[in-house]
Amino acid sequence: MADGGCAAINTKIEEGEGGYILEDVPHLTDYLPSLLTYPNPLQDNPAYSVVKQYFVDVDDTVAQKIVVHKNGDRGIHFRRAGPRQKVYFKSDEVHACIVTCGGLCPGLNTVIREIVCGLHYMYGVSKIIGIDVSHGGYMGFYSKNTVTLTPKVVNDIHKRGGTVLGTSRGGHDTSKIVDSIQDRGINQVYVIGGDGTQKGAAVIYEEVRRRGLKVSVAGIPKTIDNDIPVIDRSFGFDTAVEEAQRAINAAHVEAESTENGIGVVKLMGRYSGFIAMYATLASRDVDCCLIPESPFFLEGKGGLFQFIRKRLKENGHMVIVIAEGAGQDLLTESMQSMGQQDASGNKQLQDVGFWISHRIKDHFAKEHNMAITLKYIDPTYMIRAIPGNASDNVYCTLLAQSAVHGAMAGYTGFTCGPVNGRHSYIPFNRITEKQNKVVITDRMWARLLSSTNQPSFL
Amino acid sequence: MADGGCAAINTKIEEGEGGYILEDVPHLTDYLPSLLTYPNPLQDNPAYSVVKQYFVDVDDTVAQKIVVHKNGDRGIHFRRAGPRQKVYFKSDEVHACIVTCGGLCPGLNTVIREIVCGLHYMYGVSKIIGIDVSHGGYMGFYSKNTVTLTPKVVNDIHKRGGTVLGTSRGGHDTSKIVDSIQDRGINQVYVIGGDGTQKGAAVIYEEVRRRGLKVSVAGIPKTIDNDIPVIDRSFGFDTAVEEAQRAINAAHVEAESTENGIGVVKLMGRYSGFIAMYATLASRDVDCCLIPESPFFLEGKGGLFQFIRKRLKENGHMVIVIAEGAGQDLLTESMQSMGQQDASGNKQLQDVGFWISHRIKDHFAKEHNMAITLKYIDPTYMIRAIPGNASDNVYCTLLAQSAVHGAMAGYTGFTCGPVNGRHSYIPFNRITEKQNKVVITDRMWARLLSSTNQPSFL
Amino acid sequence: MADGGCAAINTKIEEGEGGYILEDVPHLTDYLPSLLTYPNPLQDNPAYSVVKQYFVDVDDTVAQKIVVHKNGDRGIHFRRAGPRQKVYFKSDEVHACIVTCGGLCPGLNTVIREIVCGLHYMYGVSKIIGIDVSHGGYMGFYSKNTVTLTPKVVNDIHKRGGTVLGTSRGGHDTSKIVDSIQDRGINQVYVIGGDGTQKGAAVIYEEVRRRGLKVSVAGIPKTIDNDIPVIDRSFGFDTAVEEAQRAINAAHVEAESTENGIGVVKLMGRYSGFIAMYATLASRDVDCCLIPESPFFLEGKGGLFQFIRKRLKENGHMVIVIAEGAGQDLLTESMQSMGQQDASGNKQLQDVGFWISHRIKDHFAKEHNMAITLKYIDPTYMIRAIPGNASDNVYCTLLAQSAVHGAMAGYTGFTCGPVNGRHSYIPFNRITEKQNKVVITDRMWARLLSSTNQPSFL
Amino acid sequence: MADGGCAAINTKIEEGEGGYILEDVPHLTDYLPSLLTYPNPLQDNPAYSVVKQYFVDVDDTVAQKIVVHKNGDRGIHFRRAGPRQKVYFKSDEVHACIVTCGGLCPGLNTVIREIVCGLHYMYGVSKIIGIDVSHGGYMGFYSKNTVTLTPKVVNDIHKRGGTVLGTSRGGHDTSKIVDSIQDRGINQVYVIGGDGTQKGAAVIYEEVRRRGLKVSVAGIPKTIDNDIPVIDRSFGFDTAVEEAQRAINAAHVEAESTENGIGVVKLMGRYSGFIAMYATLASRDVDCCLIPESPFFLEGKGGLFQFIRKRLKENGHMVIVIAEGAGQDLLTESMQSMGQQDASGNKQLQDVGFWISHRIKDHFAKEHNMAITLKYIDPTYMIRAIPGNASDNVYCTLLAQSAVHGAMAGYTGFTCGPVNGRHSYIPFNRITEKQNKVVITDRMWARLLSSTNQPSFL
Repeated sequence: MADGGCAAINTKIEEGEGGYILEDVPHLTDYLPSLLTYPNPLQDNPAYSVVKQYFVDVDDTVAQKIVVHKNGDRGIHFRRAGPRQKVYFKSDEVHACIVTCGGLCPGLNTVIREIVCGLHYMYGVSKIIGIDVSHGGYMGFYSKNTVTLTPKVVNDIHKRGGTVLGTSRGGHDTSKIVDSIQDRGINQVYVIGGDGTQKGAAVIYEEVRRRGLKVSVAGIPKTIDNDIPVIDRSFGFDTAVEEAQRAINAAHVEAESTENGIGVVKLMGRYSGFIAMYATLASRDVDCCLIPESPFFLEGKGGLFQFIRKRLKENGHMVIVIAEGAGQDLLTESMQSMGQQDASGNKQLQDVGFWISHRIKDHFAKEHNMAITLKYIDPTYMIRAIPGNASDNVYCTLLAQSAVHGAMAGYTGFTCGPVNGRHSYIPFNRITEKQNKVVITDRMWARLLSSTNQPSFL
Repeated sequence: MADGGCAAINTKIEEGEGGYILEDVPHLTDYLPSLLTYPNPLQDNPAYSVVKQYFVDVDDTVAQKIVVHKNGDRGIHFRRAGPRQKVYFKSDEVHACIVTCGGLCPGLNTVIREIVCGLHYMYGVSKIIGIDVSHGGYMGFYSKNTVTLTPKVVNDIHKRGGTVLGTSRGGHDTSKIVDSIQDRGINQVYVIGGDGTQKGAAVIYEEVRRRGLKVSVAGIPKTIDNDIPVIDRSFGFDTAVEEAQRAINAAHVEAESTENGIGVVKLMGRYSGFIAMYATLASRDVDCCLIPESPFFLEGKGGLFQFIRKRLKENGHMVIVIAEGAGQDLLTESMQSMGQQDASGNKQLQDVGFWISHRIKDHFAKEHNMAITLKYIDPTYMIRAIPGNASDNVYCTLLAQSAVHGAMAGYTGFTCGPVNGRHSYIPFNRITEKQNKVVITDRMWARLLSSTNQPSFL
Repeated sequence: MADGGCAAINTKIEEGEGGYILEDVPHLTDYLPSLLTYPNPLQDNPAYSVVKQYFVDVDDTVAQKIVVHKNGDRGIHFRRAGPRQKVYFKSDEVHACIVTCGGLCPGLNTVIREIVCGLHYMYGVSKIIGIDVSHGGYMGFYSKNTVTLTPKVVNDIHKRGGTVLGTSRGGHDTSKIVDSIQDRGINQVYVIGGDGTQKGAAVIYEEVRRRGLKVSVAGIPKTIDNDIPVIDRSFGFDTAVEEAQRAINAAHVEAESTENGIGVVKLMGRYSGFIAMYATLASRDVDCCLIPESPFFLEGKGGLFQFIRKRLKENGHMVIVIAEGAGQDLLTESMQSMGQQDASGNKQLQDVGFWISHRIKDHFAKEHNMAITLKYIDPTYMIRAIPGNASDNVYCTLLAQSAVHGAMAGYTGFTCGPVNGRHSYIPFNRITEKQNKVVITDRMWARLLSSTNQPSFL
Repeated sequence: MADGGCAAINTKIEEGEGGYILEDVPHLTDYLPSLLTYPNPLQDNPAYSVVKQYFVDVDDTVAQKIVVHKNGDRGIHFRRAGPRQKVYFKSDEVHACIVTCGGLCPGLNTVIREIVCGLHYMYGVSKIIGIDVSHGGYMGFYSKNTVTLTPKVVNDIHKRGGTVLGTSRGGHDTSKIVDSIQDRGINQVYVIGGDGTQKGAAVIYEEVRRRGLKVSVAGIPKTIDNDIPVIDRSFGFDTAVEEAQRAINAAHVEAESTENGIGVVKLMGRYSGFIAMYATLASRDVDCCLIPESPFFLEGKGGLFQFIRKRLKENGHMVIVIAEGAGQDLLTESMQSMGQQDASGNKQLQDVGFWISHRIKDHFAKEHNMAITLKYIDPTYMIRAIPGNASDNVYCTLLAQSAVHGAMAGYTGFTCGPVNGRHSYIPFNRITEKQNKVVITDRMWARLLSSTNQPSFL
């Protein structure tokens, strides 16, 4: 797949009436212009009678940037998510399928639950299957591993970690997947997964469109690292930051209890240090936070070792939080062993927490006047495997409902998420073309630096 | 004190250059025009060298409403919070005091800690005292109950619930308080508290101004109920919603384990149902959520009893969440015993959870064909007394730092908080003149209704 | 039913060879002497080949009291629990049923799970049903509410609170129950419940015996209060003590944060104060612990009010823990409203926590020199509804396996539990004839008194 | 130091009147026969007036084994712990010091707190110091790192993990330590630590005795692994088993979510597998538990790989728990890199969890028909660093009080702990001469095997 081609098909760019650019998402009628519409069944739901303007207006958009100055550029807008007056599927016509891919993330089961409950209770849909991809990535699609999903089946799953559908990394064959969609008569596809998965969903959408099928393909972006751009935050992130406190606290207790005690905690974040940054800000016990976006060095003036020595002299102990993707240049130098790729195409990073712990121990072992005690904690799997907290559960619910409203309204080839607090439909390519990263020249990183008083390594 | 007079002094309304209305906060130079300024000590902090535009521009403002349409009204703006190039206090001149008032709220200790650490580490301030008001509200101010606060003293307090400074409700004598401020030589006053407390802080500011003192009065709004307007959310709210899950889950387990089991959970919210609404959305186990903003009735068609009967027939059990301020009209009718005021001036509401539990039991006791088992849970104090979660800890840190930056920069008579995601300085009267309430004609309440399928009681 | 008659049938008292009294449990061969035996299928389980003396010897007993002096009375012994060489049921002949009654208790689901898994994996039994008694106590037995239980069905239930089988209080018709047992062809009955339920199980056993049925009736004693005699502790108790810390901690935080703050926590314990005592010992924050076994008084010298005044003067705040059955004499005096019975026959006690809170508030309201702030917390349902902790899960597993081994070995009319650390089979009447109570002249209560320094109220 | 010599001095073996062997602990009067005694101040404590026989009788002993048969060997007894009628220290004469050594363990702070509170509230002692040994093991004794301990200082420490006194491993110089004890005028030494620390305490006692000092040396045994013999269990163990559930649960969720998912959890236990065994029994999610006491092998029939393959085929996923000291023979074979000693003298074991994870991955990587996904979790530091749970807090309280009563009563050279449920004073050598281990031919290991259905590897 050529990204350029993908972008061409995925994105519909228009100048909005308000002077902004609307980066719109595709709609089934783009290639099936004569589809019938039906009144949204929600209109008969007594619960909605109280709500003013319950249905989202056709022209409602969401601004990516808040414009302050009157004559400023109005910027990019996205289509607002939510229920539409007209839907393009009859309730008993819908045959939905749900699939989860990639690493575990708190809230996965809540998203699954709420797609099922949303389709069932809001739109009267009863044909919903889950595709168990734990048998080789998207391959699940063309295997027999499906499970019927009903509100009863999913009733308690949000209280359990992981995903009831199973997950895996790895390649897939788009053509076979769309064959399978056709064979099964599926007409709504909900794909929950990260970067690579959303790219895959984009390709599936293209093939579906090429074949002229009435199938809505909706993505729900998943990344515990919060490294997906455009959207305000990703689900599971808040839970991860909270659960990380447990590890940081343990590192703090261990460090405090010995002379020159150092606690090192590795947190998730291959390319983006959001979890490390927020976990550090939340904890108030961290002395140094190392993230991929902010290069650092070990030896010499202004380096990490000097800072460690200083902090130990002042306080007698310290805690270092390191994102898994931090210091990769140093690691490469040290190891010359990079270049492997895991099945999903991410670089197989060496364990930087392990590496830095050894470097610190080696350094101070050579210094005869400073014996240190270092404890290294890697809580990754213990964080990933917990259920979503209250905040993520609310968020996952809204996300799932957005996806359901979008698919029912005939949108396709879209992913969804909150943009400046408003749920939106976003073209796939906008969230896969680059990563959301901590901007180290911004205020939040400055707050972190001022909170830890760590060096800027510049 | 006449509120009108207060507003007149507190607020500075200007037409901003961008066509918006700037509701500005007072500044010491409003009445002490010849004050000296000093360079912000942060400029020498190596940590800040990396940050572009670290200091907030004098003209930087924050829009209360996001304007979408090009020619729309630009609305109200507030002054952006953050460090300024110039400060109006020398580090060794500052003598700060911190006070906490009103009910407990998760995060109180984090706010105290971060005011102390912010003053100390960012601005080199070492004279900070806490005023223990547990001896009668603001009275603490003119008693002897003060404690010296240093980073060491406050180091671990954010991991404990409550407030290390103590708290109380009740009246005070503004004149005596300002006498005490003068006598002690205090020149920065940080007041953490709710509605009434912020009103009190406004009056203190006025008296300080009247006397022409170089004293900055900064408020930090506290309300677990999230019922303070203008700001995005109040600290402790997220923690409260999360901790409430424990009670809802217990109610669900109790209800599920018996025939026609009903679990009733009362949550905080005298005037606003935000905790009840978000706790319901997060839990997915709640069948009915009752809040002050949405009137309901018990008997007859479309009433609560009918809904309970229906839900029990369908599912065999149900959970009801009720905000403490819901159904007050019904309670009043039932009891005719209202009108008392507690010391802070809030109506002493009867326990609505207890009342509604009895009404439900009575109702079904009379119906011979339906024996129910009802369990009532009031987790209020167990929620209030826990420490802030990770999300609230980050928030409290930013809030405290905003207050510190503002006071150092000479602003006074202000409260602070995030407005559309950006921290701002807000005139007292804007947050005390009315309450933030759940708008039941908005989408979020519609989502709740669609999630519980409860009646709209209209 | 006359208790005396029950005892006569239930108990087999023999002089053991070691000079002790063996209070034995009935066996199917007592009235069906010619039953066939089969080798225990466990003997073919490779796992057991390593264990010396895996099977419990026929003569193995457990001493109720540890005898220290050589010539001391050898006391009462019980039959040791565990797998026997011979069993009285073939695997495919067993048709087991499980029932849970009475209030919720942490660990109920673990016991259910482990009876199912024990029968299935150890004895190859596949016909197991659960009887949902949530439709009126033992009535469930003769209704249609049964659920098939397999290892897969029960796999995760121990992570959830409550009971998957439902529970209720209330009367039953023994004759109908045994009819139902016969009709369904059930030959092993596992009854999990408290005092009253175990009495009911004893009566079922008698009727089964009268009819000459080959049906083993096994009881598993349940009481969160730890008020069942003979056994070392009851399941759920450890979890309850631990979860109670949350409430006590909240009470402590609330009390500490105000002047003359008092936190009152009511804990379970109708007739026995074990939860209150151990929760107090574990917390180290409690100033006064009131239990049913230790009478107290309010007014005058040495009374509770005087102690409260003293403690508040010393510390400024205090926490009181009160068991639900404490101070009933005072309550009766105050209220004259006793005498009601709930369906299970326990006295419907008034809420003593509520009552004492009001008495304390009233008392200090009259004393003009001491304004107090009292917060009352009742965590009962939040404690009952959680799953068992690790310690209780291990205990529940052993308990369930004991019951299964006993029933397979042909014992009947027994309940089980650890006696001095060794699992035993105990005649029903020994655990229902009286209650386990805190002995206030023993060392543990003295330790509590020395830890709280509360008055002895004598 | 020769262990034999130590034993000779430490132990006083007598034939008790009941026909048992009393392994007594030393007493100050053994070498200072003319010491004065004083009435126990507890006798004036009104709280004790209710307790019958509050003071432990001089002759009261505790049996190590419960004797069942009338003429059986009466076995070994220990002296019962508890307050004595007479004490050998006046309250204002006592100068106590407390020291903690070795790895962190939940409950350490509770023990410290309760020694302080016990001495203060029960015996009116006010001179108590803590020795911060984080500066090089026992070296702390002769450095200046002491902290004054009062009930106020230790009031909240039991809610925090770690030890407020700091800890370290490593050697010491007995002579210098006793010099320091003499110089400071310390006359009660409380030493909390493991095997090596208790040996050290024994040597200190010997030197104290050699010098003829009136100094009581009391040990409190600490080992999270429960590998100290004689006593029923060690403090922190229950908490560790409970906290381990979190890691096992995460491993289970990760394993369940992928095809052929394997979760490996390493738990503490260098020489004894108690934590692994009880954590496995409590969890019900573990498929295989590997401990030091039970050798296993990987390849071939009946080996671990075969079992993994079988379990994955049946269930699709599995969880393995491995104690840190398991499979050391295999590790040695694999690595030939043993023999290092850490500072405390324990073998520096390789990380067996890491090693076995790689062996499993390698094995299945070679088998082309079975792709596995393995996740390895090492929660060690996250478990060690938490505070004690309720059950351990009660236990630590009793342990600390036992030590205080013993030292006040003039006993010395003793350690303490519950033996068959009764707190006792035990000679040092009895708890240091060997380790408590899981007996794999006993019933509890059989229960584990029957619960996991894992091979016995024989």
